[in-house]
Amino acid sequence: MRLSAILVGLVLLVASTAWAEDGHDLWLRYRPVEAGAGYVPTAIAPVADTPTLRIARAELERGLRGLVGAAPAGADRVILIGTPASSPAIAGLDLPLKAAGEEGYLIRSATFDGRSATVIAANRDIGVLYGVFRYLSLIQTRQPVDNLAIVSAPKIKLRMLNHWDNLDRTVERGYAGQSIWDWWKLPDYADPRYADYARANASLGINGTVLNNVNAKALSLTGPWIAKAGALATVFRPYGIRVYLSARFSAPIEIGGLKTADPRDPAVRAFWKAKADEIYKVIPDFGGFLVKANSEGQPGPQDYGATHADGANMLADAVGPHGGVVIWRAFVYSHEQPDDRAKQGYAEFKPFDGQFRDNVVIQVKNGAIDFQPREPFHPLFGAMPKSNLGMEFQITKEYLGFATHLAYLGPLYEETLRADTQARGKGSTVARVIDGDLDGRKLTAMAGVANIGTDRSWSGSHFDQANWYVFGRLAWDPDASSRDIAADWAKMTFSPDPRFVGPVVDLMMGSRETVVDYMTPLGLHHQMGRSHHYGPGPWVAGGERADWTSVYYAMAGPDGIGFDRTARGSNAVAQYAPAVGACFADLRCVDEKDLLWFHHLPWDYRLKSGQTLWEGLVTRYSRGVAGVDAMGKTWGDMAPYVDAERHAQVTAFLKIQRREAQWWRDASVSWFQTFSQRPLPAGEALPPQSLDYYQGLSFPYAPGI
Amino acid sequence: MRLSAILVGLVLLVASTAWAEDGHDLWLRYRPVEAGAGYVPTAIAPVADTPTLRIARAELERGLRGLVGAAPAGADRVILIGTPASSPAIAGLDLPLKAAGEEGYLIRSATFDGRSATVIAANRDIGVLYGVFRYLSLIQTRQPVDNLAIVSAPKIKLRMLNHWDNLDRTVERGYAGQSIWDWWKLPDYADPRYADYARANASLGINGTVLNNVNAKALSLTGPWIAKAGALATVFRPYGIRVYLSARFSAPIEIGGLKTADPRDPAVRAFWKAKADEIYKVIPDFGGFLVKANSEGQPGPQDYGATHADGANMLADAVGPHGGVVIWRAFVYSHEQPDDRAKQGYAEFKPFDGQFRDNVVIQVKNGAIDFQPREPFHPLFGAMPKSNLGMEFQITKEYLGFATHLAYLGPLYEETLRADTQARGKGSTVARVIDGDLDGRKLTAMAGVANIGTDRSWSGSHFDQANWYVFGRLAWDPDASSRDIAADWAKMTFSPDPRFVGPVVDLMMGSRETVVDYMTPLGLHHQMGRSHHYGPGPWVAGGERADWTSVYYAMAGPDGIGFDRTARGSNAVAQYAPAVGACFADLRCVDEKDLLWFHHLPWDYRLKSGQTLWEGLVTRYSRGVAGVDAMGKTWGDMAPYVDAERHAQVTAFLKIQRREAQWWRDASVSWFQTFSQRPLPAGEALPPQSLDYYQGLSFPYAPGI
Repeated sequence: MRLSAILVGLVLLVASTAWAEDGHDLWLRYRPVEAGAGYVPTAIAPVADTPTLRIARAELERGLRGLVGAAPAGADRVILIGTPASSPAIAGLDLPLKAAGEEGYLIRSATFDGRSATVIAANRDIGVLYGVFRYLSLIQTRQPVDNLAIVSAPKIKLRMLNHWDNLDRTVERGYAGQSIWDWWKLPDYADPRYADYARANASLGINGTVLNNVNAKALSLTGPWIAKAGALATVFRPYGIRVYLSARFSAPIEIGGLKTADPRDPAVRAFWKAKADEIYKVIPDFGGFLVKANSEGQPGPQDYGATHADGANMLADAVGPHGGVVIWRAFVYSHEQPDDRAKQGYAEFKPFDGQFRDNVVIQVKNGAIDFQPREPFHPLFGAMPKSNLGMEFQITKEYLGFATHLAYLGPLYEETLRADTQARGKGSTVARVIDGDLDGRKLTAMAGVANIGTDRSWSGSHFDQANWYVFGRLAWDPDASSRDIAADWAKMTFSPDPRFVGPVVDLMMGSRETVVDYMTPLGLHHQMGRSHHYGPGPWVAGGERADWTSVYYAMAGPDGIGFDRTARGSNAVAQYAPAVGACFADLRCVDEKDLLWFHHLPWDYRLKSGQTLWEGLVTRYSRGVAGVDAMGKTWGDMAPYVDAERHAQVTAFLKIQRREAQWWRDASVSWFQTFSQRPLPAGEALPPQSLDYYQGLSFPYAPGI
Repeated sequence: MRLSAILVGLVLLVASTAWAEDGHDLWLRYRPVEAGAGYVPTAIAPVADTPTLRIARAELERGLRGLVGAAPAGADRVILIGTPASSPAIAGLDLPLKAAGEEGYLIRSATFDGRSATVIAANRDIGVLYGVFRYLSLIQTRQPVDNLAIVSAPKIKLRMLNHWDNLDRTVERGYAGQSIWDWWKLPDYADPRYADYARANASLGINGTVLNNVNAKALSLTGPWIAKAGALATVFRPYGIRVYLSARFSAPIEIGGLKTADPRDPAVRAFWKAKADEIYKVIPDFGGFLVKANSEGQPGPQDYGATHADGANMLADAVGPHGGVVIWRAFVYSHEQPDDRAKQGYAEFKPFDGQFRDNVVIQVKNGAIDFQPREPFHPLFGAMPKSNLGMEFQITKEYLGFATHLAYLGPLYEETLRADTQARGKGSTVARVIDGDLDGRKLTAMAGVANIGTDRSWSGSHFDQANWYVFGRLAWDPDASSRDIAADWAKMTFSPDPRFVGPVVDLMMGSRETVVDYMTPLGLHHQMGRSHHYGPGPWVAGGERADWTSVYYAMAGPDGIGFDRTARGSNAVAQYAPAVGACFADLRCVDEKDLLWFHHLPWDYRLKSGQTLWEGLVTRYSRGVAGVDAMGKTWGDMAPYVDAERHAQVTAFLKIQRREAQWWRDASVSWFQTFSQRPLPAGEALPPQSLDYYQGLSFPYAPGI
């Protein structure tokens, strides 16, 4: 009686104060499984004492205790974790570990010492940690764990986050608060959150992080800042995560006292060699440099008449002896060249295929413009078989409504990865380019522009966590299903109840298409507000350069709308494999989702539905608004399965999204109607405000600039 | 056995995951009392259902459950809370509630329904909430609760935080991350943290908050921003907290379409009337405006030849009918007037005593310069008996080492509050000016410039929480002891163990003097780096205005050092009551802590210790460094009483402080030695770097600018 009173007190205490459902736990929630779920407390066999195995063991303990409770003394089930090198017991099991490779793992049900056992083994400690997270996820997603025979190894070598974090702690295109790097207190103070960050990434297999913005400051390469990066690297190391830095190409001038940054200049080469040596002294496993050169005003080798290859190779030579790599972005477009911006990355890089060092990765954005809600895959994929091509996805939602629009990006990533470049015939998917399979590349990479900040939920909204999660899962396996991943995430993050998982996974899977509908349907792109990229701005024109405007891309006029990239226009289709390009150019073949990306068409052009283009455009905008309505309704129904705190935030954000979807629809319809000069389709409501009103809105403190 | 196994599991769970010791709980930790501490589970009698009483009841429940465990059914002790109006039981007790006033409370041990009872009663709901926090603090600080007869009422009417939070979410002079106001998502989404903030403030009796920076944007007074403020006001209202806004004086021009902001212009007056009406429609209990006018480039009535009284009274007339107030800052100094900056606030305001409306408060900084580590009290205190004078303290440590120097500001606040203005003879303390007692003022105010941000610990460091705490406690009772308050805070925030409380309270009480020693000993002031105010900058000279430099204040030369404010110099002493000014001017009377504030003295001037001024200066700098060493040692010994996470952060910060204290000492000694031309006293180490080195340091991303 006394005891039970204490027990009740404790349970109440736990329920009321222990679990602030602020999202900080991410998908690593480890809440108790339902009674009768069939999982039993399990002991952990002794584990070798290395930095990474200590973490693996602690994670396993934490997960099991949370999910199924601590094992009583003498539990008849045991988990054995480790590597053959560190564990004689595991060595004795003679496991087929070759398939696990350098970073993978093997999970096996076995009998050990006469007890029912689960073995989580790997060739290296980091594989064990990955295996532990995988094992716990099986319980979190309520899969059986009694008869396991899992082997998993990452298909991509560098699985990276790119932080566009500035030295003043702002985050370019960040919608989740400040940078989590508290530069000012580094290197003296390592916020416990750094380890939380590393843990979350390790749970996905992410093994690299670029700390600072690609629009870089040379200062980040000076001694005090190298020390700050070094303090972070120390925290990340046992989690298998290497630190990289964005390098400003003109650093030899700015911090090296040189008059040039010409990559062919011996003094410049010596500067970078010495700088690499200096960094590796502090960070022995430093990953390397990420470089944005000759793009959007950043300095680069072309400033000196040298090429991207000259620049990348010079840096590669500096870090190469230390085992480092150079990641060189293909996101370039010239001030001088008035050609279709979509064509410029290909035009500038394709000629140099085969000329980059082995330790250079060309990092290519998923599409040829810039992370739009929808873009056809970038024509460079498949076009540079003699180069290491890495993928750059954007996780932060610069163009998809910031943190307050719900848009699960799994389908966007999957759409690109499954796109068929036909570079070596059918089945030459982007995924096979990226994972090195198509062209036999060894140094492979996938990067995601992080959506992480100081917000308690890490990502600015609960559902945006799913984008970090799906990015990591696809970097491990680019052939995985974004729907399966959504289901795992929803179960681990919210609830494994099928009454929740079913509707919410459907909601997630449709959410990106909904955003496409209300922002840029039918292949439209780059129609957002200037500079902050918030809200609709199809009227944006003039200013510094034409290809930073909306009118440049929509090409709307009395005659019709769309960007002609066929041979009659910019002929961007010619940058694709012939069969692919031919289809894009052919109105009978091209998918309507990409219609206005490739074609300029009259307002009365007939869509497959029988509607005119104008009618189809308007109804798609409206369908987007209705899609948000439907998401709101579904989410409302989910209240029984979600804690009040997170349910309320998602509800509030969906309300914002609903209002802003309407705004996108109304503003876009108002604007394009000035060209179409046609009435709205029957049943379509007139925009409640005049076009002047929408054009007059301003947002002086929009985040992320 | 089964039950006990579950129990053990639960205890482990609680210990390992429930309490992230990241400081977010502040002083409201409610951890279980030690076994045998003598507190027993207590039931809560039914409470009337009003917004504030619901919160009071929930807090009491949460506190009791955490501290002593939930009460079992039929507990023989009961707590009764409420007001006579809402509780017939309390009305029936016929308590002497008059002494509790509008906001105070009464806590009485009593017998009720034959049970041992504690009664927490007040005239208004907010008093009950304050009383609940007080009652819980008694247990938190391990005071007996069996025989209580407490009555407490605040001595000051407006107890306010001033947030210098900008609309882009940066915080001027903030060292704790971003503004907690997520303006972008307001008013749609109310972060649960807003209620946490209100709760923490209510626990101290703080009843007002100015949301935005005194360097204000007119935009904050437009409809969308009023709505954002309104959403915050809705959250704060049941916690007894009113929202105020900083008003930009030129708003009639910037958002009102007028050509002038002249306070005598009828259109301007109409603008502010209408603006006030608009705000009160959204926020019926809006507190009023805080104004920084004609100061540091801000617009004000003097731009039109009008006076501070003209400006303040115009705004007072706009908010007065709604019950609002205008808080007008006396922190002014003119670009045109080359007089001693310390004299200008007095010179500009004293002549207008008696000319301000009854609903105007003149908000005066504690000292005449700007929140230095030490300043004599501001000469306006006591000098404007016919005006409402409010106190402005700075809680954020702009001039005391940012978040990483440990400096408990209680003694600073107390020193000012206990200073004797002698305005009406001896005993005319600043506290008595501020609480209205000296001059019979009814509208009294104390404001603190907040040190709150998005950092998980709220204040950027654990010990900085104490500065928020002591400000709140002194605003309730300006006669309270900063040492007693430190002890309460240390017990509530860390541990009530006397082996912890004794050394840590001593450490806290000495910490501010230590900072004074290594930064600005003997009355020196304004010696920090330019603009960011980080680190030593005694050589700062030139630039926009002389009184923004260090050399202006130290007046160091071959002949000596110090600012002569006697009749031979600026005669600032004449702004004080004659006896006070005479003492300041007299080398035999003035306290050496203020020596160089008031006097310019030769390097060989003899201090009371027998040392020369030069020797005393150097040894004080060094004493400051030694003081940080001692704090580090004390804190190291506290490891057994503090969780590892918070102990580690404080340790890391003390290490930073140690290094920076040395830097302050070395840089200052190097600089002043160029004037003194004297050797260091015996045993004093030479600065390890040249003066050039110290002068060459730069800090491009210092926070808080």
